[in-house]
Formats: sequence, C-alpha cells, structure tokens
Amino acid sequence: MSWNREARYVVGADLGGTNIRAAVLDREGKMLGHGKRPSLALEGATRTVAQIKQAVDEAISEAGVSRAEIGGLGIGVPGHIDPTGKKVLWAPNFYEDGFPYRNISLGDPIAEATALPVLMGNDANVAAMGEFRFGAGRGTRTMVMFTLGTGVGGGLILDGKLWTGFTGGAGELGHIIIAAGDRGGAAAYGSLESMAQIAAICERASRKLCQGRPSVLAERCAYDWHRITPKDIADAANEGDAVAREVLEETGYYIGLGVTSVVMLLNPEKIVIGGGVSGAGELLFEPIRRTAWANSSSTLIKDCPIIAAELGDDAGIYGGAGLVFDALESAV
Amino acid sequence: MSWNREARYVVGADLGGTNIRAAVLDREGKMLGHGKRPSLALEGATRTVAQIKQAVDEAISEAGVSRAEIGGLGIGVPGHIDPTGKKVLWAPNFYEDGFPYRNISLGDPIAEATALPVLMGNDANVAAMGEFRFGAGRGTRTMVMFTLGTGVGGGLILDGKLWTGFTGGAGELGHIIIAAGDRGGAAAYGSLESMAQIAAICERASRKLCQGRPSVLAERCAYDWHRITPKDIADAANEGDAVAREVLEETGYYIGLGVTSVVMLLNPEKIVIGGGVSGAGELLFEPIRRTAWANSSSTLIKDCPIIAAELGDDAGIYGGAGLVFDALESAV
Repeated sequence: MSWNREARYVVGADLGGTNIRAAVLDREGKMLGHGKRPSLALEGATRTVAQIKQAVDEAISEAGVSRAEIGGLGIGVPGHIDPTGKKVLWAPNFYEDGFPYRNISLGDPIAEATALPVLMGNDANVAAMGEFRFGAGRGTRTMVMFTLGTGVGGGLILDGKLWTGFTGGAGELGHIIIAAGDRGGAAAYGSLESMAQIAAICERASRKLCQGRPSVLAERCAYDWHRITPKDIADAANEGDAVAREVLEETGYYIGLGVTSVVMLLNPEKIVIGGGVSGAGELLFEPIRRTAWANSSSTLIKDCPIIAAELGDDAGIYGGAGLVFDALESAV
Repeated sequence: MSWNREARYVVGADLGGTNIRAAVLDREGKMLGHGKRPSLALEGATRTVAQIKQAVDEAISEAGVSRAEIGGLGIGVPGHIDPTGKKVLWAPNFYEDGFPYRNISLGDPIAEATALPVLMGNDANVAAMGEFRFGAGRGTRTMVMFTLGTGVGGGLILDGKLWTGFTGGAGELGHIIIAAGDRGGAAAYGSLESMAQIAAICERASRKLCQGRPSVLAERCAYDWHRITPKDIADAANEGDAVAREVLEETGYYIGLGVTSVVMLLNPEKIVIGGGVSGAGELLFEPIRRTAWANSSSTLIKDCPIIAAELGDDAGIYGGAGLVFDALESAV
C-alpha cells in the first residue's frame, strides 16, 4: 500500500498489554472517533491483529469518514520495533506460541486486516512524537520526553524527527546509568529506571516509615507498606507531609540527573516529562529542575525548559497519528 | 564568501590552548601540507587570528596548491561554538581583554585574514567528525566518540551529520552523570569526566599506594604520588602490575557505564574511544566492553562495536576538513 499524501485523516493507535485503543485524527490533531478492544496479548499475534482491526473499524465508524480519506495507521507498541516500522523485534508482554514476541512481522498482517498502510514504533518513542506534534513539544524542533511509571521510558525528537537509532532501539531513557552500583530492577543497577520507577519511589516511602518516621502515609496504607502508591505519596506531599515530600525530593534528584545527562549530550530545546508519576506536580518538578540546573552547564540548561506532558494517556494515539503524518509529509 | 563545490582541497585546523595546527587535505583525506604556530591564547583574538592565518598560509605553501582550489577552512575550537559555526559563545582557555572568550565572532575575522570561507566547531565534536570521515568511524552512519584526557569530551554523528544541538553545545559526553554524588571535578559530582579524567585515574593509583599496596608505580614515581601519569599506570598494567590493572579495571567500569548510557539512548552503530588515556589499550578497553555488555540491552549492544580511535592528535584537523567537506556537499 502506498501513501496517499492528500489524505485528510489518519488513525493513531496505542497497543498496550491490556487494551488496544485507536482514534481517527484530522491534520490539526482533532480526534473524530474512538475504538477500544482488549489486546489479548497472550493469545498470539493473529488474535491481537483481529482486535486491532476491530478497534480501528470502530474508530472509523464513529468518526463517520470514508476509509479512502484515511492516510494510514500508526501504532505505538511496547517493544523494540525495527527501523522500517514493520516488525516487532522483541516485545516482552506479547506472546506467540507461548513465548514473548521475537521478530514478529506484525505490520503487514495489520495492513492487510485494516486495508491501511501501517507504521509501528516503540510506545514510549511514539508518545514523545505525540507530545512533539500535538502536546507540550509543539513549536520545538528538538525535544526529549521522559515517561515515568512502572518503568521509565521516553523518546527523542531530533531536528523534527523521531530518532530511533541504528536498529530502531534508541530512546531508552530508563536505561541510562546515573547512580553506579545503586538500586537494581528490571533495568541495570543505578539506571534511571531502577532509581525512579514506581517500585523505587514506594520503596523510599516504606523505608522511611520502617524507620519510624511520622507520616500520614502509615495510616493511609493501614501500616501495610506494600499498599502505598505514588498517588498516595503525591497526595500526602501536597498536604505537607514531610516524609512524602522527602520521597519526591529524592526521586526528583535522580530524575534531574537523568535530565542533566540528556541536556549535556543532546542540547535539546525542551524536556517534557510525562507518565503517571509526573502527576505529583511541582513537588516533583521543582527538585528535577533544581538538580538539572545544579549539574548541567548553564549555557545549555538555560535554553531548555523542563515541563509537564499535556496529552496524558492519549500521547501514544497522537504519536501514532504523528508517525503517519510524518510519512505522508516526506512521501514523494 | 560562498562555497566552491568543485574545490579539490580544504584546510582543516585544530586550535589548542598552546598551538594552532593546520593542514591541507584532498577529498580522500590525504594531508598535503602542514602549518603550526603558537595560538597565543591569552593575548587576545586579534593576535590569535593572525597566528591562525600564518599556520594556514604555511600549510597551503607546503602543499603547493593554489588558494583558489581550496574550498574552505574548518577549525576545531575548545569551547562552545554557536550553531552557525561562526561565533565562539564561550571558551575558557582563550582570553580577550583579560577575560575568557564570550560571544567572540571569530569566524569572520579568520575568513577575512585567510581569504577562505570558515566554519568552526567544538574541538571534541570536530575530532568525532574526523574519526567518522577518515578514521575508526568510516563506513558508519551513526557513531559516538569519547575522548579521554585531562577532561572527557566527545561528539555525536547521527545519520551522517555532526549533531550539535539546539544551541551548538551538544556532545558533552564528560558531563553525563553516571555515579550520583561520587567524585567531583570541573564537571559535576559523579559525571563521567569526574570519574574518568586523568586526575581521577591518578587519584585511584595514589589511594591504593597510600594503602600500602605493593606496586612498581611506587618506585617509578619515587614515592611522590603527584608524579604518577596515566602512561605510568598503563605501562605498569601491561607489565602485570596488579594495582595498575585494578586502576584500569575501575576506570574502564565507569567509562563502560557512560558507553551504556549512550548506547541505550542513541542506539549507535559504533562507539569510538580516543584521547591519550585510551592508549592504555586492551587492559582498559576490555572492562569498558564488559561493563557496557553487562548493563546495556543485548539487542542494542550486540550491533555496536566499541573500538579505538585511529587518528590520534590529528583527529581535529581531519574533522575540521570534514566540516568543510560536509558544507561543500550540502551547498546548492
């Protein structure tokens, strides 16, 4: 299938371990129709492709536009996508024949099922593309997004383009090393992910509570530290709880070191921070900014605002659409 | 002055705090003539420009080519160069009226003095360009170079182009943070520079000697720890000295963490490591590679060889030439 440069609409989609969500967008980024289905991540690629088709059909139907007016389908996928955007090289949460995806050519079957040209990208990379085109990165040319959640990810937009690297695996912001030999997790010891993922944040709170520090968090989790959530911590911090504030301060420090590395390496125009953890707001952003300023060269950090993402959970859908708009614009 | 796309030669130059060195190169990277003068870094821009002119004249005269056949002059400068390559935004080792350069428009006076179009770049960035075009990075599209010496610097070549960022300051590899809160230096605490610069390496050796560890280094520096050099350490390590080997192992670990961050962020095709410290050879490269493999995703590091630079002190001259060849090739 070839790119229809004149197309008025595209479909953006976000493939998660639980659901596939899709929307029809016009060129201004207005969402005209939505679709959602369970992604059936453990039941094989054929079933997942069928679910994607249904979510896309639903979105197109709700939008009330003709398929001929749609330029293509862009999808964010939680895994390592090859540089052509057609193949899933690795996706730990999606299974085929009982094993996580490895070298699964997902693009062509989706294109066949939906009768649309298809491009895939890593979900965190694609979310960065969404913020760049339609969210907090609008108006810049070079932007880096950090996504803070269960894991830590992100994406790089360099001179207006999503940078995916030599084999499509770039932008793994959670895997940069900031604290040699410190906490480990799914990523390496001392990686940004290990130091700033939800598990690390909650661990910080638990540790302080176990030291007998007074905090409203103790009662809120009924003295069961495993029940503490980042939202509990953010809420307590915003109410003035000293322990919760320390947790955000310490977490912001590590994120600020990650921001420093990115600023000094890439000299971006803007840093955008999203993901559920970023919902803690200024009590997290303030130490992030303070640490980045303290450790970066002023000549670089002074031109690089550090701001909150704007698109929330829809960043991936917007970014999927952005992948297709990019392809349409560069098609000849 | 405009770019002469048909020019057969260019001049590359490396402006250091001590000397300015220049050479005429043909398009295959063959050096046809050299020139060298003291850079008079503390005596003001006018005198430094005059020295640059003399070094360039000497190189052209030795090459025996006509100035009309020379496409331009590219210069690596130890400082922050603006994105146009015409202005020095900051250079701590060069003085004008008693203060380090700030916003000195050096490009135009050099162009006037030499009667050549001029482009400047940060010296470490330009050295990366040299290795990319004419050295260890030949044949790649995306390469990152680390330069290990008194400081730690480097440069990024992304999809065939030198990446200088939003304001020209990108590629500060020494300023990425890898060991939160550890050793400080001119760069931040725990930065790659602070952990891997010559001072840090020699400190590691001193510390072990002060602990009474047996080592040939003690006699070689006549029990004056301040006299230890990286070359002493490399020599002793290559002769089997256990203390010296530990110093290289520990240093390689930190450099390997820096490599990890770069690999996971940018997914390059090759990592090139140069600068005087890299002369220690395999006893340094082996722990660098081992650490990078241990901490990076195998899907990214497996496609990214970590190799030694090839051009030594001439990388900057080659890279200066590369800046001009790039400009000639993209001129319309």
